[in-house]
Amino acid sequence: MPRCSVTRRVHFNAAHRLHNPKQSDEWNRRTYGKCNNPNFHGHNYEMDVTVTGEVSGETGYVMDLDELKRITERVVLSRLDHANLNVDVPWFRDVIPSVENIAVVCWRELRAALPAELALRLRLWETPRNYVEYEGH
Amino acid sequence: MPRCSVTRRVHFNAAHRLHNPKQSDEWNRRTYGKCNNPNFHGHNYEMDVTVTGEVSGETGYVMDLDELKRITERVVLSRLDHANLNVDVPWFRDVIPSVENIAVVCWRELRAALPAELALRLRLWETPRNYVEYEGH
Amino acid sequence: MPRCSVTRRVHFNAAHRLHNPKQSDEWNRRTYGKCNNPNFHGHNYEMDVTVTGEVSGETGYVMDLDELKRITERVVLSRLDHANLNVDVPWFRDVIPSVENIAVVCWRELRAALPAELALRLRLWETPRNYVEYEGH
Amino acid sequence: MPRCSVTRRVHFNAAHRLHNPKQSDEWNRRTYGKCNNPNFHGHNYEMDVTVTGEVSGETGYVMDLDELKRITERVVLSRLDHANLNVDVPWFRDVIPSVENIAVVCWRELRAALPAELALRLRLWETPRNYVEYEGH
Amino acid sequence: MPRCSVTRRVHFNAAHRLHNPKQSDEWNRRTYGKCNNPNFHGHNYEMDVTVTGEVSGETGYVMDLDELKRITERVVLSRLDHANLNVDVPWFRDVIPSVENIAVVCWRELRAALPAELALRLRLWETPRNYVEYEGH
Amino acid sequence: MPRCSVTRRVHFNAAHRLHNPKQSDEWNRRTYGKCNNPNFHGHNYEMDVTVTGEVSGETGYVMDLDELKRITERVVLSRLDHANLNVDVPWFRDVIPSVENIAVVCWRELRAALPAELALRLRLWETPRNYVEYEGH
Repeated sequence: MPRCSVTRRVHFNAAHRLHNPKQSDEWNRRTYGKCNNPNFHGHNYEMDVTVTGEVSGETGYVMDLDELKRITERVVLSRLDHANLNVDVPWFRDVIPSVENIAVVCWRELRAALPAELALRLRLWETPRNYVEYEGH
Repeated sequence: MPRCSVTRRVHFNAAHRLHNPKQSDEWNRRTYGKCNNPNFHGHNYEMDVTVTGEVSGETGYVMDLDELKRITERVVLSRLDHANLNVDVPWFRDVIPSVENIAVVCWRELRAALPAELALRLRLWETPRNYVEYEGH
Repeated sequence: MPRCSVTRRVHFNAAHRLHNPKQSDEWNRRTYGKCNNPNFHGHNYEMDVTVTGEVSGETGYVMDLDELKRITERVVLSRLDHANLNVDVPWFRDVIPSVENIAVVCWRELRAALPAELALRLRLWETPRNYVEYEGH
Repeated sequence: MPRCSVTRRVHFNAAHRLHNPKQSDEWNRRTYGKCNNPNFHGHNYEMDVTVTGEVSGETGYVMDLDELKRITERVVLSRLDHANLNVDVPWFRDVIPSVENIAVVCWRELRAALPAELALRLRLWETPRNYVEYEGH
Repeated sequence: MPRCSVTRRVHFNAAHRLHNPKQSDEWNRRTYGKCNNPNFHGHNYEMDVTVTGEVSGETGYVMDLDELKRITERVVLSRLDHANLNVDVPWFRDVIPSVENIAVVCWRELRAALPAELALRLRLWETPRNYVEYEGH
Repeated sequence: MPRCSVTRRVHFNAAHRLHNPKQSDEWNRRTYGKCNNPNFHGHNYEMDVTVTGEVSGETGYVMDLDELKRITERVVLSRLDHANLNVDVPWFRDVIPSVENIAVVCWRELRAALPAELALRLRLWETPRNYVEYEGH
């Protein structure tokens, strides 16, 4: 059977700040600039969730995209949407919520929730002009 | 001379929450749902700043769009970009930072900074699927 | 209070064909070309639902956009999404489902479901390069 | 019959420079900056051509959008697409090809080619972040 | 010579339904939900056709994108645009027209029509939020 | 540490023509069509600059995207934005400024300016429907 990648795009929005508590305030301001604002700022995040596998002869699907959407809503969006990543989300207790780290953490959570035979990669936009891709390496 | 509308699209991102301090916590949760999160959430805002006026025979411009961009950066973006609207921005001390009110406040500030003979309207996207228009009435 | 327009963008997809049963097959082929295919074709429709009114001092809203979304889902999307407009939707029994007429019919249904003090207009995309606007005149 | 606006989006790309030959080189450099480059620069232009009129009960159309596309291709795109606006296009012999003036000139040409009972307006993007609207006043 | 990938984006719209005739009606409804509507629904499809090869020193092209567009129009769009995939297109007589299978079938047809030294991959959007990628494995 | 790709999208616009001076005028017209216009035409170019590397545990970054933007502005945009590629840019003295070659040249310049441990790839849109990808092979 042919192998395809299928993608479902999802949306969440959240507040965050970039801050490394092991470094000085001066280091944080110099490194992160406006993104270090102690009162937080925020973004609309768009995430492409892509799974790769064989097309089923029975359904014509690699995976039912409504099922992929439901899993993503349960595993990721229910925790991150309309949240403050630094304050509300335990995943970022010891992890700086940069767009790179958000993608890595979402990938690990989705990886554990998806069938092992499907490869997984994510593309996460933080703004319309910045995005990150991660596929688990 | 012909009258045209010219638009410059600008971007900022910010944290906010929707909360009316004159109402009970229960009223706020019921009215605003997830947008009432006390720890804030955030958005990428895209704003179309539109001015209408006569095309100059000398320049071919209604207004130099680089100048419109600079005014918008000075008057609006320098205050709102990477800010917490509720905490960092005095404009919202007594105004709930709904997308409607953000548009109204930005319009008033830009109105005061632009030549009186140019009409002004704004379109402000809070997410890729929600936006507000305001032209001063 | 200031008057704003607030917009919620919604999505549906549907099959249709353009055919006027009072005209000959020849007239229909000449008038509608490929859009007259008797076996139907289809589109992803994106619709901007815009209501205009005063911003409430209590909520900061013209109208709760989640409520506008729910009304649109109940009144319009539940009938049109994943449907064959010609066959499944009684609204088009005697109305040709051109993008103009889809917009007019959706406007009438939404008009009846929305508070009378809010003005209503729709923008309906049939493809990324074609759209219709209607505000009830 | 209801009155709708229907829009067809078209594309052209072109070279131009902004230069007023009645002014000094110094005035031109100060006024237009990089847009005054004597060797030209260029853009992808996207234009929304919008006509407003009554929906026909016979066809369901305000106007056949394929016909609107063909008229726009004949009247506008055949002259501007892949052209140097300053050098190749007589319309700009004595008119500075600012985005405002391009919109005004296209409007006049399309106005003369379209049925008088249909109102006409244009929206012309010069970049993804700048656009002009003109409706003939 | 350097190896690049060049892409031409094309558009078609079509009606379809998802239905496996070897399974029961109950299985089909449970598996496909609204997409099983016996009267069909439809989509605007956007397809990125990407070929990879060496840049010619003589032309600066991997392949003339106008030629790639013409081949795609002849091989794919002439058959799928404004069609009912289940009824009008023999390719889907025994193949369920899921977005995965549409991509696989288009890939095979384009593969046979393109020079063997150019690698081919497709990205096919079924809605603005769902897409499939296929490169022939 | 996990390896991510991070992308910054940048914009420039420019005039160019496609012309191979070693070939006859007839060959050039036949090969390039309208793109051979001796008076030039132009485009808005959007370029995704993507670097791949390990996420730093100290900053949460693969690379500071503001730094990537500054390098891209200095190395590429300062030379190409609002320029005539054939006339103003020495890189294209002996290279035809096709979108393929623009991508290859930008890649080489950026490669020399970026840390060696970061992999680099570019995606360059010449119009909203055409783009090239290059990663240095």
